[in-house]
Amino acid sequence: MDLFPHSDKATALLQRLQAFFDGEILPAEAAIQAEAEARRAAGNAWQPSDVIAGLSAKARAQGLWNLFLPRTGDAPDGLSNLDYAPLCELMGRVPWSAEVFNCAAPDSGNMEILARYGTPAQQARWLDPLLEGTLRSAFLMTEPDVASSDATNVACRIARDGDDWVISGRKWFSSGAGDPRCGLHIVMGKTDPDAATHLQQSMLLVPADAPGVRVLRPLTVFGYDDAPHGHMDIALDAVRVPADSVLLGPGRGFEIAQGRLGPGRMHHCMRSIGLAERALELMCTRLRERRAFGRAIADFSVWHERIAQSRCMIDQARLLTLQAAHAMDTVGNKAARQQIAMIKVVAPAMAERVLDWAIQAHGGAGVTADFPLAQAWSIARVLRLADGPDEVHCASIARMELARHDPARHDRDRRDVPPRTADGGGRR
Amino acid sequence: MDLFPHSDKATALLQRLQAFFDGEILPAEAAIQAEAEARRAAGNAWQPSDVIAGLSAKARAQGLWNLFLPRTGDAPDGLSNLDYAPLCELMGRVPWSAEVFNCAAPDSGNMEILARYGTPAQQARWLDPLLEGTLRSAFLMTEPDVASSDATNVACRIARDGDDWVISGRKWFSSGAGDPRCGLHIVMGKTDPDAATHLQQSMLLVPADAPGVRVLRPLTVFGYDDAPHGHMDIALDAVRVPADSVLLGPGRGFEIAQGRLGPGRMHHCMRSIGLAERALELMCTRLRERRAFGRAIADFSVWHERIAQSRCMIDQARLLTLQAAHAMDTVGNKAARQQIAMIKVVAPAMAERVLDWAIQAHGGAGVTADFPLAQAWSIARVLRLADGPDEVHCASIARMELARHDPARHDRDRRDVPPRTADGGGRR
Amino acid sequence: MDLFPHSDKATALLQRLQAFFDGEILPAEAAIQAEAEARRAAGNAWQPSDVIAGLSAKARAQGLWNLFLPRTGDAPDGLSNLDYAPLCELMGRVPWSAEVFNCAAPDSGNMEILARYGTPAQQARWLDPLLEGTLRSAFLMTEPDVASSDATNVACRIARDGDDWVISGRKWFSSGAGDPRCGLHIVMGKTDPDAATHLQQSMLLVPADAPGVRVLRPLTVFGYDDAPHGHMDIALDAVRVPADSVLLGPGRGFEIAQGRLGPGRMHHCMRSIGLAERALELMCTRLRERRAFGRAIADFSVWHERIAQSRCMIDQARLLTLQAAHAMDTVGNKAARQQIAMIKVVAPAMAERVLDWAIQAHGGAGVTADFPLAQAWSIARVLRLADGPDEVHCASIARMELARHDPARHDRDRRDVPPRTADGGGRR
Amino acid sequence: MDLFPHSDKATALLQRLQAFFDGEILPAEAAIQAEAEARRAAGNAWQPSDVIAGLSAKARAQGLWNLFLPRTGDAPDGLSNLDYAPLCELMGRVPWSAEVFNCAAPDSGNMEILARYGTPAQQARWLDPLLEGTLRSAFLMTEPDVASSDATNVACRIARDGDDWVISGRKWFSSGAGDPRCGLHIVMGKTDPDAATHLQQSMLLVPADAPGVRVLRPLTVFGYDDAPHGHMDIALDAVRVPADSVLLGPGRGFEIAQGRLGPGRMHHCMRSIGLAERALELMCTRLRERRAFGRAIADFSVWHERIAQSRCMIDQARLLTLQAAHAMDTVGNKAARQQIAMIKVVAPAMAERVLDWAIQAHGGAGVTADFPLAQAWSIARVLRLADGPDEVHCASIARMELARHDPARHDRDRRDVPPRTADGGGRR
Repeated sequence: MDLFPHSDKATALLQRLQAFFDGEILPAEAAIQAEAEARRAAGNAWQPSDVIAGLSAKARAQGLWNLFLPRTGDAPDGLSNLDYAPLCELMGRVPWSAEVFNCAAPDSGNMEILARYGTPAQQARWLDPLLEGTLRSAFLMTEPDVASSDATNVACRIARDGDDWVISGRKWFSSGAGDPRCGLHIVMGKTDPDAATHLQQSMLLVPADAPGVRVLRPLTVFGYDDAPHGHMDIALDAVRVPADSVLLGPGRGFEIAQGRLGPGRMHHCMRSIGLAERALELMCTRLRERRAFGRAIADFSVWHERIAQSRCMIDQARLLTLQAAHAMDTVGNKAARQQIAMIKVVAPAMAERVLDWAIQAHGGAGVTADFPLAQAWSIARVLRLADGPDEVHCASIARMELARHDPARHDRDRRDVPPRTADGGGRR
Repeated sequence: MDLFPHSDKATALLQRLQAFFDGEILPAEAAIQAEAEARRAAGNAWQPSDVIAGLSAKARAQGLWNLFLPRTGDAPDGLSNLDYAPLCELMGRVPWSAEVFNCAAPDSGNMEILARYGTPAQQARWLDPLLEGTLRSAFLMTEPDVASSDATNVACRIARDGDDWVISGRKWFSSGAGDPRCGLHIVMGKTDPDAATHLQQSMLLVPADAPGVRVLRPLTVFGYDDAPHGHMDIALDAVRVPADSVLLGPGRGFEIAQGRLGPGRMHHCMRSIGLAERALELMCTRLRERRAFGRAIADFSVWHERIAQSRCMIDQARLLTLQAAHAMDTVGNKAARQQIAMIKVVAPAMAERVLDWAIQAHGGAGVTADFPLAQAWSIARVLRLADGPDEVHCASIARMELARHDPARHDRDRRDVPPRTADGGGRR
Repeated sequence: MDLFPHSDKATALLQRLQAFFDGEILPAEAAIQAEAEARRAAGNAWQPSDVIAGLSAKARAQGLWNLFLPRTGDAPDGLSNLDYAPLCELMGRVPWSAEVFNCAAPDSGNMEILARYGTPAQQARWLDPLLEGTLRSAFLMTEPDVASSDATNVACRIARDGDDWVISGRKWFSSGAGDPRCGLHIVMGKTDPDAATHLQQSMLLVPADAPGVRVLRPLTVFGYDDAPHGHMDIALDAVRVPADSVLLGPGRGFEIAQGRLGPGRMHHCMRSIGLAERALELMCTRLRERRAFGRAIADFSVWHERIAQSRCMIDQARLLTLQAAHAMDTVGNKAARQQIAMIKVVAPAMAERVLDWAIQAHGGAGVTADFPLAQAWSIARVLRLADGPDEVHCASIARMELARHDPARHDRDRRDVPPRTADGGGRR
Repeated sequence: MDLFPHSDKATALLQRLQAFFDGEILPAEAAIQAEAEARRAAGNAWQPSDVIAGLSAKARAQGLWNLFLPRTGDAPDGLSNLDYAPLCELMGRVPWSAEVFNCAAPDSGNMEILARYGTPAQQARWLDPLLEGTLRSAFLMTEPDVASSDATNVACRIARDGDDWVISGRKWFSSGAGDPRCGLHIVMGKTDPDAATHLQQSMLLVPADAPGVRVLRPLTVFGYDDAPHGHMDIALDAVRVPADSVLLGPGRGFEIAQGRLGPGRMHHCMRSIGLAERALELMCTRLRERRAFGRAIADFSVWHERIAQSRCMIDQARLLTLQAAHAMDTVGNKAARQQIAMIKVVAPAMAERVLDWAIQAHGGAGVTADFPLAQAWSIARVLRLADGPDEVHCASIARMELARHDPARHDRDRRDVPPRTADGGGRR
């Protein structure tokens, strides 16, 4: 009775991924936590997980590897966004698991733009080891000193000096840069402040060990450092890279960012749905187990409201996400802009809401590390800011909606009307 | 890029219905309102609309008639629920329009149960004129003196006396009974208070002019009497009908009610989506037209939030409704119970929310009859009570959800697990 | 244990008013409703209520008359805003009751500005009969064709022609103008479109029977016409009044409006609290009376949440309103602007929320006229638009709040900082 | 214009406390953070802060010490709850600051019950050093294995063995037990499971170094360990204490808990208001500083809504809290039960809401440790669970509200009606 017909290939993959989850991922949760705590206690949390390494080897051997790779001319075996959705949702149930399958952000998005926009030389140097899982990468876009939701605010400067680009700026929320294997920083900066608004930026491939790159500190997210992945505050002090480090070409950074953020947002949303689905399971289980005032807590109708709302919200967010994925597959990321913005607003907020109820259902235990809920909540909450705050996406959605009601236009069918300005989505 | 593959037949119907809407329905809105006001001023609002009669004749001539009829063995030309959805949504944009196409509640639901459960004689007497649109009907279920959401509370008594049934009770919210053409009351009452919970009730076909049937008064819904349709308070004082007036059989009233309420709820939800879609259109148009404090009101970001949330909520509710419709088509109304309960909670509340914003966007005008918003709001609001209040549906949804987490069960896939009790949905 | 020390005089008045409520008002509710229904059925709802006339005579005989009148130099017996608050809240429990005590809007506000700004001749002609309750009045400010929340949008023109003013414009939501006794329209219009923003408007005293004044129609508010009080749509076609009809002076209309709206908003909020308090009572009573699924509905915890939230919201709104009233009494309406705007946002929304739950608790009965809830809801809802929509008040509140954090200022105490611009509150 | 007349003494204290805040507390925030980070990096965060120790000496020298102590017969210099409120709110702006003034939970509550219920010998041993600030203490009530919101669920057993009590159980969320100076655990356990419901529990004074007391681990709260204070998971394995360690007497643990939780909840709420007030300040400041899309973010109306709602919510919560404090002062903690439950529901949720907006206003920076917002959010969130989850308080509030509408009762004034059952509040 499923409305969304997944391909046979995707269905088969989902069954295998589910089996791997049941057999390998869920049983390893305690080991992952113990490993992290032991390392933290020993004074260095910033080491790649041995547990994940072991699981990765198994996953790769089973072909559960790089599943995120989209189907393209070069990669005909790739999955459509619609097909990838249930796989990504499943990984979302256990946040660390995506790395096991080499499907974790920001590497997945970085691989995607390297695959799409990189030169053969760039691909050989950076994409191949990323696809192998031997290299990790970061995406340096957000800056601490400006409202980064407005791309024209980018302050990082990239100046040409002979055959080199020289980069000066500061970037933070450079996620994944805490991992010692992180060797590549994809840096967004301004090459030409005088160009048209969306031609000012360029994207450079910068070795993590280039002179002038300094990781200042890890940031915490509601008390979590998310080690060893991490969210880093990084200074770029006159970092010098050769001219061929530019991706796609000077002035095309904004264009790449737009291309990258669509699938990235989609994946975040799919994972948010997995987070929420697991939260609902934990909530139901807990409510059945505990008793107060003479009844199972599951028998109190105040929880019926929350369970019902959770189920309604999750299923709606999933359907909206699948629809957006299908739109990306069929009409392209650009035409699907409103739908992508919509799920970006809907899915993290939905997950945050369900997780909050699940935490409340667990009492004090819910805020501790004894359940995955509190940290999952922090992930959902930060997604209401990451890749553009809700407010910016809402403004985009509204602008496209209002454009359909332009008194100067006479189109009837609101579904087929393009947004008012070609760069509308670019404001995000 | 539409995820939901409507049949070619449905697509063609939708185009024709849309054309009829543009050419006939929307231009007639003022005439309908003027007709009602004139009649009210003249002292009798309880007359069938001449405007609708004229439109109905055109619609029928074009084959836009009885579109709600489901595809069954007897009616192979009927539409699936999924195919009917966009048609029903479109009608929802203008609440009085469903009658034009002989698709209005409660007649549509009444025709459905007569088609499904009626004897040939019952069908000849009641169903045929209903299908012709020459007869109207009401469904007498809710009672003023008990919490009718609990079917076991039904107080209307049906006693056997010789070859007759004798009915005594009081029913209200008998919608449609205000129309002079309303000739049939389908009455739910208790034939056997000592039987098992869901075998106590029976459903009888009662002529509206049977002795003892007294329409006490019309009820108002937030100040609207919804004349000439109306919501009537009706006394049944020892109303006597022959034995063959029972539908399906004694003790099967609950079973019929369950069967009837599924599609009825679905149609209410589809229409709610149409209501909300129109409200969003009106909201966007108004916000673009009016200026305050030096800018179009559409430029204030507080409205961007609301427009964006409206678009997100509408699209999600539509997807959930389509999914539920598809489930009804493929696995049946009983297996789709949780999904039907979900849309019943989601769609009216969504429409109420969007309508409230649209009203606010219109300022004082929004609460008047100059726009269809205030009355539409009353429709959405009352749907949070009609066919079971939200609380009862939430409890049903939660019960089915919790059943999936029964520690005594080991099924993994929450999607395929039936609800804990066979009669779970029956509590609605 | 009451934090707010009401004067002995106010306490004594409250006891007497409460006794009158118990003995006269509540028992008359059915008669009021019956009278209105009978007149409506007879074809003319626009007649003053005989029931109210009878009650008014009793109330006046007991000195329960014109209680709203503020304490001023001229009226040393008046009550402070703080003292009037509980009286006004009590009247709010039964919306029609304020007229019994000659305390109903818009007469109360109109009397207040006549008392404060009228010449002796104006007072003799208009104020005295209003204080006697023999005259009724309306306040013509809102216009259908512009966003009236921005006072600079006022389109009604007032031109000088010899010794006369000539008024041309259209006004709606002229509440109270449906009453045949309504003899005075206080009209806001533009005398000088070229003057400084807040000196363009003037306020004129216009006899309701002046040539050119045409009541076009009554407006409905969610289906209610609120007859015989009513909300009228009025055309002013070259209405000519003598020069001495101007209140306070040409160009001072905005100043008067500001002075009028403070107490008016306060009274609306106090009455909203009374509405909500009664709704909570009805909700609790109903929930205790009805049973479903084997228990009193009052035993379901989903209702505990709503009852608790209602109690919390009501008590908070009352405290905020009392604080604002106290501020008006002690530092004046202008310095209390932020607080007045705050209660205007808080109290109607709170009442709307509590009323919605109360309606839901009553099932279908809640939306009918069998309980006062549905109409009360319409009152609360329209108050989110009347006297300035929530959005405008929120902007005012925020502007004053942000002004306290002006980097150019160094005041520490946020409580004593005036708003950034002298006319900030004037936008309301 | 302040409605709540604070005593001259309280006003003077507030001025001095404010001066201390400006001169000492706010300037020390960076040092506190640096100290904690340095210690954590060095491998031991569980040490008392030297910065706080220095500030404490200054505060004590200025008489800003033990301000929480209520006025009682023994302590005539104590402050009323109403007088303490603004002091406590001010401390709430910087969560670590309460310890500077020896006013931090749980020590303040523990001192209060020792002062009220302790024997002279108990006071000499435990209360005196606590008042000196040389000892710290913990309150061991919550248990990991049961729903602790229902006091009858307490599983910790206290058995008499000769002249000793022997305690066996597990307690967590033992806040403050991470501090090396913590020498006293006040332990709630069951002495008589067969007694009447609220006579089963007793409270014992247990030295933190008693054999059998094992601190198993610190808990985290959304990633924060709140070191060195901490929230500890503690095993009590046949811990033996002498008979005179019982507080007040066997079977009176519940009674003490009730007495303790009133002021404790009040203080949490006052501090929550301080947290929210600071969040609003930071929000306004940030919104003025940052620009996007050509304007200061403070100019976007979506933020006006949030600022306005924040100001409305904060002021309302403060007024409700002051009213509850006044009720405690004038009619006692027991009669003020509903009001205490109300602020417990209102204030933390309000602070959580305001903090979430403030975080959103700060973009990514809001979730990091660069601003106090994220950690403050975790404090507000956990308060929706601590000292009873919202659901339990809502049920209490509703039970008392419903009791006022008992059809069997005829009292008119809802304000003076006691709750239905004498132990109603005891469930909290």
